[in-house]
Amino acid sequence: MNEVKYKIGIDIGGTNIKMGVVNDKNEIIAKKSIKTDVKLGYIKIIKNMANAIKELLYLHKIDLNNCISIGIGCPGTVNFKTGEILFAANLLWEGVPLAEELKKNIDLPIKVSNDANCAALGEAIAGGAKGVHNMVLITLGTGVGGGVIIDGKIYEGGSPGGVELGHTVLVVDGEQCTCGRKGCFEAYASATALIRDTKRAAEKNPNSLINELCSKNLSKINGLTPFEAARLGDEEGIAIIDRYIMHLAEGIIDIVNIFRPEKILLSGGIANQGDALIEPLKKYVKKYTFAGDKIHVADIKQATLGNDAGIIGAANL
Amino acid sequence: MNEVKYKIGIDIGGTNIKMGVVNDKNEIIAKKSIKTDVKLGYIKIIKNMANAIKELLYLHKIDLNNCISIGIGCPGTVNFKTGEILFAANLLWEGVPLAEELKKNIDLPIKVSNDANCAALGEAIAGGAKGVHNMVLITLGTGVGGGVIIDGKIYEGGSPGGVELGHTVLVVDGEQCTCGRKGCFEAYASATALIRDTKRAAEKNPNSLINELCSKNLSKINGLTPFEAARLGDEEGIAIIDRYIMHLAEGIIDIVNIFRPEKILLSGGIANQGDALIEPLKKYVKKYTFAGDKIHVADIKQATLGNDAGIIGAANL
Repeated sequence: MNEVKYKIGIDIGGTNIKMGVVNDKNEIIAKKSIKTDVKLGYIKIIKNMANAIKELLYLHKIDLNNCISIGIGCPGTVNFKTGEILFAANLLWEGVPLAEELKKNIDLPIKVSNDANCAALGEAIAGGAKGVHNMVLITLGTGVGGGVIIDGKIYEGGSPGGVELGHTVLVVDGEQCTCGRKGCFEAYASATALIRDTKRAAEKNPNSLINELCSKNLSKINGLTPFEAARLGDEEGIAIIDRYIMHLAEGIIDIVNIFRPEKILLSGGIANQGDALIEPLKKYVKKYTFAGDKIHVADIKQATLGNDAGIIGAANL
Repeated sequence: MNEVKYKIGIDIGGTNIKMGVVNDKNEIIAKKSIKTDVKLGYIKIIKNMANAIKELLYLHKIDLNNCISIGIGCPGTVNFKTGEILFAANLLWEGVPLAEELKKNIDLPIKVSNDANCAALGEAIAGGAKGVHNMVLITLGTGVGGGVIIDGKIYEGGSPGGVELGHTVLVVDGEQCTCGRKGCFEAYASATALIRDTKRAAEKNPNSLINELCSKNLSKINGLTPFEAARLGDEEGIAIIDRYIMHLAEGIIDIVNIFRPEKILLSGGIANQGDALIEPLKKYVKKYTFAGDKIHVADIKQATLGNDAGIIGAANL
């Protein structure tokens, strides 16, 4: 008789739904990805998801009876108590009873949280913050998201709505944010914001190396362009990166002053810059954290699990 | 035989130390205040505190054997696990083993937290947020402080340092804050900040009613002056209050987007402005909270317990 019990973790995205079977060592032993196909509507999407799980188990000869639970990370605003998605813009979902609907297809205990929360939990359990009970993951992507782990558990907030780390203000009346407010952390520290600032600088300074790096086609500028320009000594590139790091640091200091985490992890493409990003960031954060000269300030590192973080975290909900 | 058990709550301040005996209905049945007298040093101060407690019990014929614990709210940065004060600027304390030292004088279980945390807990237990398990108290005084209650307990942060709600940024590179950083919530929403802005406006606009209200002596301006001027229709007064409320709202939105509390209470002199402050504040917060049009946004009210909040909260640590 096989005594090993497995957990299933699902990471729903606007483009793909990734799922994995996680063993008791928090290793993903089987993995699958399907297209999300938003226009099918939630009932069909969830049905497809259930079928994909069954296929994955069948292919890897895993008995459903050896699976003890399903956890799902979903973008948008989640009521984690009921497993309902209140709204998820990129899925066009509003009031979707995700856990309830999936349970009609697979009868296992099902829990749901926000995708960034699951990624944070995955990193805290098996990744860059393994064994750390109080940590924060910050994702620097199209937007700025993140998850807060308090005493080893996801902090879901005191009422439904989600912990929106990217939507705390850095500059009152500053850059327009997608959330309707101005000056949010996201409007300065996302890859989108970095690209916006790089384009602006390129337009303003036609002789900047940035224009050369993108072959004078500003639409080719991505999050790496200003880092590359800075590395090559371009004045504009250096200024953009300095300013980006300063804003990212200001947002992180807020998180440190509020949560006092033991560790902060950064994920997303920009985090791949490694020391060029993290070393100056750490100095700034240490300098301006409240009482930062007297107490331990959270260590800042790159996340290590990549896409697997969401699956492992979801499996551990 | 008297079965009633009492808890002792102490609220240490830079000027006075207030202490009270709290019954099992969370009523303060006996209260006393002594001068802090910072220059005596911590050993004598704590000794005086212990003697004052014994006097208070004696005076009210309460047997020490009927007291089950002592809780202390202290300004500054507290290690709540050890009961040590890491530093408290206005007491000139650094590394003071407060719980340990008091226990030498009175042998009861002793717990210590930050004073604003205790006030938040008091309001959540017996005040303006009675029965609310997830709430935030924001104190608008010389500085901006506060306490966060999660699931009915004080959130102490993931490592020593304290939850510093007043030291999250509103304007990167903005007004100088006492903490060394620029642009903090405190630097815009404290009474000190409001007075600073009122003085500036009075200097700039000699015909403003503000100058009349303070008899042309700017040092007489206090936190009420601009509210009074606004009420009398003074243009400058209205502009100052609008701007103050906007900044306060921006800071509160950050707290809502992070903690999603069910309720937010405001305390301190400025909170006494009641609806003139709270009504426009609520509108702004609702408008710019992330997904504020779709979900419940924390109700904002005035705290109700005043100075008793700290004693009741401390007693319940």
